[in-house]
Amino acid sequence: MKIKIDLSNLEKCLPQNISAQKKDQFKTLFYSKMALLMHEMYKGKITSFPKAAFWGPAWLNIWYTPGVSAPTLAIKKQEEKAYTLTNRANKVAIISDGSRVLGLGNCGPKSALAVMEGKALLMNRLGAIDAEPLCINSLNEKGLNDPQKIIDFAHMISPSYSAINLEDISQPNCYKVLDTLKETYPIPVWHDDAQGTACITCAALINALKVAGKKIDKVKIILFGAGAANTSIAAFLLTLGADPKKMILFDSKGPLHKNRTDLKNNPAYYKQWGLCQKTNFKQINSKEEAFKEADVLIAFSRPGPDIIAPELIKLMAKRAIVFACANPVPEIYPEQAIEAGAFIVGTGRGDFENQINNSLCFPGILKGVLLCGAKKITDTMALAAAKAIAKRAQDTTLNRHHILPDKTDLEIYPLQAAAVAAQAKKEGLATIKITPKQVYTQVKEELLFREEINNLLIKNKLIKKPTQKLVQAVFEQTLKEVL
Amino acid sequence: MKIKIDLSNLEKCLPQNISAQKKDQFKTLFYSKMALLMHEMYKGKITSFPKAAFWGPAWLNIWYTPGVSAPTLAIKKQEEKAYTLTNRANKVAIISDGSRVLGLGNCGPKSALAVMEGKALLMNRLGAIDAEPLCINSLNEKGLNDPQKIIDFAHMISPSYSAINLEDISQPNCYKVLDTLKETYPIPVWHDDAQGTACITCAALINALKVAGKKIDKVKIILFGAGAANTSIAAFLLTLGADPKKMILFDSKGPLHKNRTDLKNNPAYYKQWGLCQKTNFKQINSKEEAFKEADVLIAFSRPGPDIIAPELIKLMAKRAIVFACANPVPEIYPEQAIEAGAFIVGTGRGDFENQINNSLCFPGILKGVLLCGAKKITDTMALAAAKAIAKRAQDTTLNRHHILPDKTDLEIYPLQAAAVAAQAKKEGLATIKITPKQVYTQVKEELLFREEINNLLIKNKLIKKPTQKLVQAVFEQTLKEVL
Repeated sequence: MKIKIDLSNLEKCLPQNISAQKKDQFKTLFYSKMALLMHEMYKGKITSFPKAAFWGPAWLNIWYTPGVSAPTLAIKKQEEKAYTLTNRANKVAIISDGSRVLGLGNCGPKSALAVMEGKALLMNRLGAIDAEPLCINSLNEKGLNDPQKIIDFAHMISPSYSAINLEDISQPNCYKVLDTLKETYPIPVWHDDAQGTACITCAALINALKVAGKKIDKVKIILFGAGAANTSIAAFLLTLGADPKKMILFDSKGPLHKNRTDLKNNPAYYKQWGLCQKTNFKQINSKEEAFKEADVLIAFSRPGPDIIAPELIKLMAKRAIVFACANPVPEIYPEQAIEAGAFIVGTGRGDFENQINNSLCFPGILKGVLLCGAKKITDTMALAAAKAIAKRAQDTTLNRHHILPDKTDLEIYPLQAAAVAAQAKKEGLATIKITPKQVYTQVKEELLFREEINNLLIKNKLIKKPTQKLVQAVFEQTLKEVL
Repeated sequence: MKIKIDLSNLEKCLPQNISAQKKDQFKTLFYSKMALLMHEMYKGKITSFPKAAFWGPAWLNIWYTPGVSAPTLAIKKQEEKAYTLTNRANKVAIISDGSRVLGLGNCGPKSALAVMEGKALLMNRLGAIDAEPLCINSLNEKGLNDPQKIIDFAHMISPSYSAINLEDISQPNCYKVLDTLKETYPIPVWHDDAQGTACITCAALINALKVAGKKIDKVKIILFGAGAANTSIAAFLLTLGADPKKMILFDSKGPLHKNRTDLKNNPAYYKQWGLCQKTNFKQINSKEEAFKEADVLIAFSRPGPDIIAPELIKLMAKRAIVFACANPVPEIYPEQAIEAGAFIVGTGRGDFENQINNSLCFPGILKGVLLCGAKKITDTMALAAAKAIAKRAQDTTLNRHHILPDKTDLEIYPLQAAAVAAQAKKEGLATIKITPKQVYTQVKEELLFREEINNLLIKNKLIKKPTQKLVQAVFEQTLKEVL
């Protein structure tokens, strides 16, 4: 059977008798191999292009000297003009020091570029945003990643962008950067690993609870991992009405509670310490006790498999919800979790069902922020987006295998952008007069515009297609290695 | 008569009896008005676009998680892989703090963005380069533009780009930034106001001298202005064989010579002090004496008109060469200079003949640097480009009205890129094995590729055309205001 270029028949082409684990291994390896070859073929994922045309050589006098002096002076006189006379209004900087890339640890800024270009590609295609990957060296004289350097960098670069997206910065540095910038920064700051992950996880949980017939204020929740993702998720869940008494967080040393003096004594972990005081009412200290009769497990810890044992899942309540979100490999493979009794399983991976991935939210949220000129991005704005996503799934095909909208459903981005703009207005944070409906329409138009260009370039072979032969060869080579 | 959208009949549409000065005023104002309107219509000049396509939803697993882990880890293992697995190899950062924008003084980073986007547009269309305008806040706690902040910024950002272009940074800060980075920076640094301007001015002078029948080692040269441009031009001219004894530089306080203790005592002006010791052998101290029998005047001082009086031009030698390069208005209008006896006149403006503008060189030089992986950009590499430009004009239509190739002649960019790569190889600075011929061919292909996309977008109305009515209205309004 021939592998299609769109990879839609990938699983069907595998041998019928392949085990679930081998199948997962196959997919991980296949996408790795394809990614390497395709990144090399295209030499990256994003390029720049003129928005304006030269209608003759004399137009150099308009786009450059002497004419360009006029918009320059107009902005000097009134700085808001930058938002209409340059592309600034649509520009987002993706800032990362590469100190914690995906689940791969400290990779450094040079290799983080591959991931940040991916992020820029998604913003481009899903949010019609012009994003620039800025992977920076944040090492100080002692050779340590220094949050103050990231803060200074962000301040220096702010005149060129309308928002920044902090990405893949190790903890606790990421908190210091985010919290400091939230106080003092002139443009909105988005921390995808915190707010983005919390948004999409809440959207997924709202719907999972609905399908499982459970209520947020009644469920027992385990948050496995206490990094940027889960500390933000905890805050979002509390806003949504979760009961802190029924919530237990784990970090690498065990459950968080009032006796965790290691966290109390380290000011860098003030977020975790705050949660120590609010959650795990009974000071439960063992995994087994924590997982017992838990309704929800949300894991953002480290790449699996075998980080969460099936035995723990077996201890959970009926109709248990398990989100195992480590990248590139979940803490437990979905098939194993289901086998151990989980009712709904989500992961961070796009090749399993129920992918819980920020890419479903950040392009829409940021686009909404840009279009209404929001001064910042509050948790409640991100929650408005989460609700818009959840509603969209409810309106289409909600069931335990589809708790989130399909990632091909481009409708979710304009819907979120509109919800975010409406919430920003409600909170007095919008600076541009635009209705949610106008936001919705504009995002749709801009996405269609980019889609049209994309199709045109493909049609005219200006973006080349890989050959079927190549894809087939990767498939066969991977299969040989896995079996 | 109807103004064409390509503006090719702009001058013909003016009243026959309009004075030269009014005509110049008209053009300055017309391009200002058009630039404001067109910048607003297009909302900037540059956008981003995917190089790679999604051939189906499953391709998200290739361009983002989990697949993207593979190129990330490959770069972590071997950092050069970033040049083939991301777009880094074609990326240039345009860094400016907006402290001296064009001839407009300190405009700040927010308004500098309009100019830097213009620069990015030119790199895109003329050099097939992906450039990002990074306009930064370089103010320190004292509220002063701090060169160390620019240096630190450049170091932080280097992992994301293959070269940086320093632009419109006030002196003496620009020297400190450039000289410090030249010593310690891991990727090539281009200072367009210094090396770029010196390159194109030398190309123009080589040909002007040829047309005027003069020899570089025999001519008396006035350099009016002693900023980044003219101090670099002085160095380039000396390399080309000019006689320092016959060279006189002026700064805002008068001619440079050995008694300028103000420059001697200020370490920030070490470049100027170096030239004080080498040039103006006779310690000439008046403009009149300096201009007397001078063969060449190169002015990069401040916006005119009336900065250089026609009386001074009258004192110059026969077949005098006058380059009045201040932007947006030259130190003396060309018509006035010609009337005062100048034989060849050049300015920085594209609406006069003999435009001496970096846009003829920086896209080609930087592309050459990127393609051969040059470790730095030496003055001799820039001079190799200057000679390639001069030769191209000699091979086409060299005369006193055309000392440089036409700006529509896209051939100059691949020619320069090849010359620069050849020189880099000669100096042992190239890291990529590629012949000058291969560089030439690749640049041509990439430029054609971008041209094809551009034409396709225009044809499909994805880049909109301004109406003739609008252009006509601007023409008539401008005429009314000028007459």
